[in-house]
Amino acid sequence: LSDDSTNSLKPTLGIIGVGLIGGSIGLAARRRGFFGQILGAGRDRAALDRAKDLGCIDHGHTDLSNVARLADVLVFCTPVDCIASQILAAAGQCRPGTLITDAGSTKAQLVAEVEEHLPAHVVFIGSHPLAGSEKRGAEHARPDLFDNRLTIITHTASTTATAERRATEFWKSLGSRVARMSPERHDEALALTSHLPHLLAAALAGILPDQLRDFTANGFRDSTRIAAGDPSLWVPIFLQNRVGLCEATVGLQNRLIEFQKALLAADEGTLTRLLAEGKKVRDDLGS
Amino acid sequence: LSDDSTNSLKPTLGIIGVGLIGGSIGLAARRRGFFGQILGAGRDRAALDRAKDLGCIDHGHTDLSNVARLADVLVFCTPVDCIASQILAAAGQCRPGTLITDAGSTKAQLVAEVEEHLPAHVVFIGSHPLAGSEKRGAEHARPDLFDNRLTIITHTASTTATAERRATEFWKSLGSRVARMSPERHDEALALTSHLPHLLAAALAGILPDQLRDFTANGFRDSTRIAAGDPSLWVPIFLQNRVGLCEATVGLQNRLIEFQKALLAADEGTLTRLLAEGKKVRDDLGS
Repeated sequence: LSDDSTNSLKPTLGIIGVGLIGGSIGLAARRRGFFGQILGAGRDRAALDRAKDLGCIDHGHTDLSNVARLADVLVFCTPVDCIASQILAAAGQCRPGTLITDAGSTKAQLVAEVEEHLPAHVVFIGSHPLAGSEKRGAEHARPDLFDNRLTIITHTASTTATAERRATEFWKSLGSRVARMSPERHDEALALTSHLPHLLAAALAGILPDQLRDFTANGFRDSTRIAAGDPSLWVPIFLQNRVGLCEATVGLQNRLIEFQKALLAADEGTLTRLLAEGKKVRDDLGS
Repeated sequence: LSDDSTNSLKPTLGIIGVGLIGGSIGLAARRRGFFGQILGAGRDRAALDRAKDLGCIDHGHTDLSNVARLADVLVFCTPVDCIASQILAAAGQCRPGTLITDAGSTKAQLVAEVEEHLPAHVVFIGSHPLAGSEKRGAEHARPDLFDNRLTIITHTASTTATAERRATEFWKSLGSRVARMSPERHDEALALTSHLPHLLAAALAGILPDQLRDFTANGFRDSTRIAAGDPSLWVPIFLQNRVGLCEATVGLQNRLIEFQKALLAADEGTLTRLLAEGKKVRDDLGS
């Protein structure tokens, strides 16, 4: 994990928030041969014990500082509105050279808040592994969650090459591919590829009257699957990317108006083009 | 299949269009103990031979009349813009009492066209099994496609109780549940539960720029899966239900505006409510 782990013979990975993502990081690290200790931190003792039983972590602590002071790499997998303040609270406990990163779905606000106040003896790289599901909890964690997935690491004016290399190695060691971009570019891209799909799924599910539930089939289920995600995780994501998400929604609305005009005009050619454009993109994405 | 099959010792099921749905009807009938012969009709000799090899049909005919004159039940699984004219072309060849039905995704226009011209010696009930996928062809047919799914059969002023009973028994014999409603009510319901999800999936996939494809994950894939459906099947569905689909789209647009207002106002309470309403519906639908 790091060349800087001089305090002990074994490196220590600290995972803050041992749910689906945090738990999968622990499982992936272990499966891919990480030989150090894996510590988890969280508020819920029972959840930490469950994560330990599942092999996601070696030990769980309800006091974040117990993990922070031992970790060579500290990865925050908590809701996006908690990450910045938790990082800043933990950073003072960390040993010099500790790499701090996260798995939050938004980056611009979070990275700016962290970089403004972070002490100089630790390094921080914002990260976002594009993996997950509508499920929550370490019981849904999987050692292959990051296999061949893409993790975006963010790059700002204060990012050093060494920190970037260490963050890249960390995510690659879990099976992920890595790309880097600015936090702002990340949020703009994810507004369209992740946050808008979630908004649409919730909108479509939300307007279904009770009496029509029996008339849904696989198409409706697939289209709305992610609407089952926890609102307490998604509202902070929406709020941290609210302008970008609004812009992405406008783009979708313009497309809906194209469809409506074509429907009202019974314009077979335009409908065919609109559906074919969607099919081409979807076919290219694969199953 | 029918008490009226007096022309031979074994009843005959005729399937027009032996693709995913038609092929699955044949497989389901056979697996559930239908002992008569299963004839398929289609334009593509190779596709019919493949369907026969897969066990979907016993014999394939490129001439619809060869199937029509032998069938006790004749089910049309062709694109919705072909069904009415094919039924009317076949009806003259049918023996008295033949039950004609279909599997089309729209009903109002199709049922009206058929009922206006149908000869009196056959009976017709419009049907729509709420099953399928974005895939095409008998190679994707499954004997359990209709298990516990709902098939809607349509009811009009000219529908007899006997015809309704026979159509109900037919779909139940394939494993399906059956509900009945007017063709107009069907189209209104399916606009929201099937046609709008398809339009949304195509719209979302269609606005994804090439350079953002690598930043999609499972959520985008699930949400857009049905966009891979064949436009040549979906454009006729959209056209036959274009007013209902436009109305459903307006309902969705209103919901999008609620989301946008809440985003712009950073209104956490409203965002939580909107996401929670979607989650409740989706959780109730099950996986």
